[in-house]
Amino acid sequence: MAIELYWGSGSPFAWRVMLTLEVKGLTYESKLLEFSKGENKTPTYLRLNPRGKVPTLKDGDFVLYESLAIMSYLDRKYPTPPLFGDTPEETGLIWRVLAECESYVVTANNKIVRPIFFGQGLDKTEEIQQAAQTVRNEFKLMDEHLAGSQWLVGDKISAADIGVFPLVQLILRAASKEAAQPFNLGFLPLAHRFSHIARWVQRIEALPNYQRTYPPHWQ
Amino acid sequence: MAIELYWGSGSPFAWRVMLTLEVKGLTYESKLLEFSKGENKTPTYLRLNPRGKVPTLKDGDFVLYESLAIMSYLDRKYPTPPLFGDTPEETGLIWRVLAECESYVVTANNKIVRPIFFGQGLDKTEEIQQAAQTVRNEFKLMDEHLAGSQWLVGDKISAADIGVFPLVQLILRAASKEAAQPFNLGFLPLAHRFSHIARWVQRIEALPNYQRTYPPHWQ
Repeated sequence: MAIELYWGSGSPFAWRVMLTLEVKGLTYESKLLEFSKGENKTPTYLRLNPRGKVPTLKDGDFVLYESLAIMSYLDRKYPTPPLFGDTPEETGLIWRVLAECESYVVTANNKIVRPIFFGQGLDKTEEIQQAAQTVRNEFKLMDEHLAGSQWLVGDKISAADIGVFPLVQLILRAASKEAAQPFNLGFLPLAHRFSHIARWVQRIEALPNYQRTYPPHWQ
Repeated sequence: MAIELYWGSGSPFAWRVMLTLEVKGLTYESKLLEFSKGENKTPTYLRLNPRGKVPTLKDGDFVLYESLAIMSYLDRKYPTPPLFGDTPEETGLIWRVLAECESYVVTANNKIVRPIFFGQGLDKTEEIQQAAQTVRNEFKLMDEHLAGSQWLVGDKISAADIGVFPLVQLILRAASKEAAQPFNLGFLPLAHRFSHIARWVQRIEALPNYQRTYPPHWQ
């Protein structure tokens, strides 16, 4: 039975899973949900994912949600190429990068991206500036690492790169919006601010089938 | 070379790693840091963990922080007993539980536990009540699952149980404090409110060497 992926355009978490599927060369049936139409809150979808979020993966009879969980499932079920490291040390470092992304980048990103995309809370200037500082600190650490390495852990693409990349793209897109300009977020132009991250972004964008994972409404 | 674990008393994240080490029967050198003395901010410690947090594990020359990352490293390096599942499906479900714990329980816990333990922000009644509601919702889901199963995923203890357990203990301890009483948090008595979680807690407390992992200042 085919793999089915339920996703939403622009969800960085769904994007992680799409990149994982493409890097592993897995075919899947795309189930694009439109949040504006409430397609993630239908009884049918809530039976698959009671939280009404994306992504959700269905592989035969097995249903799973939470993006990092899906990535770990896919890696164990379809181990080629391995995305969680070739050694215990690499595995540990990959999960460290992912845990740091969830703890620091995702939380701070939300405080920036939501006001800019949806126009609510744009008056919370201090909170947005503080969140931008947090994300810039994390970008600085990544940029320093990428100065000496092509990938975030080890010498090839891993779940660390795939997990972090959509969050980077999301903040860059937010930073490019007119509503972001008063905050001077400090991410753009990326090649000038964080040149090693900029080259790493290009490396991922050069992956085969990358375009298939790009959020349609961002085109 | 011995495994060294840098930890702090009462840190649920350090507790996860101690339980992992005990369940795997690994001996380790305990490096208890006293945050009140700034021992997590010394130059020596910051070289191991630039974020100045706990836990940090040192295994020979390899240094790792972030609790879930350390657990995944230990599981791959010392695979007996396996804590991340025997099948791809179990692996996925275990990481789903862990991701849900990080996204929902940890964040909400912080909003309750910090005011109660440190006395700051106790006036944010609504925020504390909302956070308690979030945690109770997660407890309800767990309790329902544990009504039909001894463990959170599969039929034996896994990283899911070990990852969630210290967060449950933390909120229960907070709920037992005098400062918590005005909020009527709704967790105690546990055997009455969430009876299946209560029995699951007892199961973990019955593990060999559990007492060695119990926060010393909670004794």
